[in-house]
Amino acid sequence: MDALEAIFTRRSIRRYTHEAVAAEDVKTILEAGMNAPSANNRQPWHFIVVDEREKLNAIMEVHPYSRMLAEAPLAIIVCGDPAASKFWQQDCAAATQNILLAARALELGTVWMGVYPDERRAASVASLFGVPDAIEAMCIIAVGHPAEHKGRVERYDTGKVHKNVW
Amino acid sequence: MDALEAIFTRRSIRRYTHEAVAAEDVKTILEAGMNAPSANNRQPWHFIVVDEREKLNAIMEVHPYSRMLAEAPLAIIVCGDPAASKFWQQDCAAATQNILLAARALELGTVWMGVYPDERRAASVASLFGVPDAIEAMCIIAVGHPAEHKGRVERYDTGKVHKNVW
Repeated sequence: MDALEAIFTRRSIRRYTHEAVAAEDVKTILEAGMNAPSANNRQPWHFIVVDEREKLNAIMEVHPYSRMLAEAPLAIIVCGDPAASKFWQQDCAAATQNILLAARALELGTVWMGVYPDERRAASVASLFGVPDAIEAMCIIAVGHPAEHKGRVERYDTGKVHKNVW
Repeated sequence: MDALEAIFTRRSIRRYTHEAVAAEDVKTILEAGMNAPSANNRQPWHFIVVDEREKLNAIMEVHPYSRMLAEAPLAIIVCGDPAASKFWQQDCAAATQNILLAARALELGTVWMGVYPDERRAASVASLFGVPDAIEAMCIIAVGHPAEHKGRVERYDTGKVHKNVW
């Protein structure tokens, strides 16, 4: 898929077939995440790949916007290491965006569920997956084969663009 | 350019020709930024497009890792609105990554320079560009036609991947 097409047609997908995500595709999207830029190349990220049904169901009990995990066969929890970099949150978000786009390029659907800095969600997810105290569970990405198809939306907003000064 | 190729060959480019970036390309990469996902679709971002030489030079005086702006004809300052979303930093980083990848797809080079949460850099950039007190200048992206060419690097690290539990 063309890069600009992937960027402009990536949408949050909340309906999935139950088809598993191929191991090769999981590796490709994780590798895409790890190819994000990071401040001083610190790569302050970790990824928990969740494909056990019991664990996916457990996420639904602690995250209020995760119902699509009843259908999605896979979730990736992106975690950050604040001690590694003060830019960890931005670096992990860049990695997350790479994962969403690589998945789109492979015709997979995704949705980004916010965790950190919501303290309740972060504590629940950390507890569920044994995330060390020094690490933050930043977000959860649902991944699967889409059972809904969304078109491109127009999101260019000239009001958000400033020229040489705010 | 293929989406996976763009993701895997995007590298930080610090040498540029002096050729200007076409207005159409500037719009495309900003539009890519605005097509990033954001929590509750709040789109808590703003973009300052800097193409005045005097302003680009001024950035070099306040940001320690911005020497490539002596060559790059353009910079985009990505700003976030913390009042709009507690996830603003992640949302703006996703927008930044989309800009880097769209630029790569257009054969443009970029480098992401961290600003927020470095307080000194954030205050200097805000002052230079008249960024309102309620807004944070999060990062600066140098953009231009590359005068150096870097290959793909292997960044897959199995030690960063956890299966169903940390």
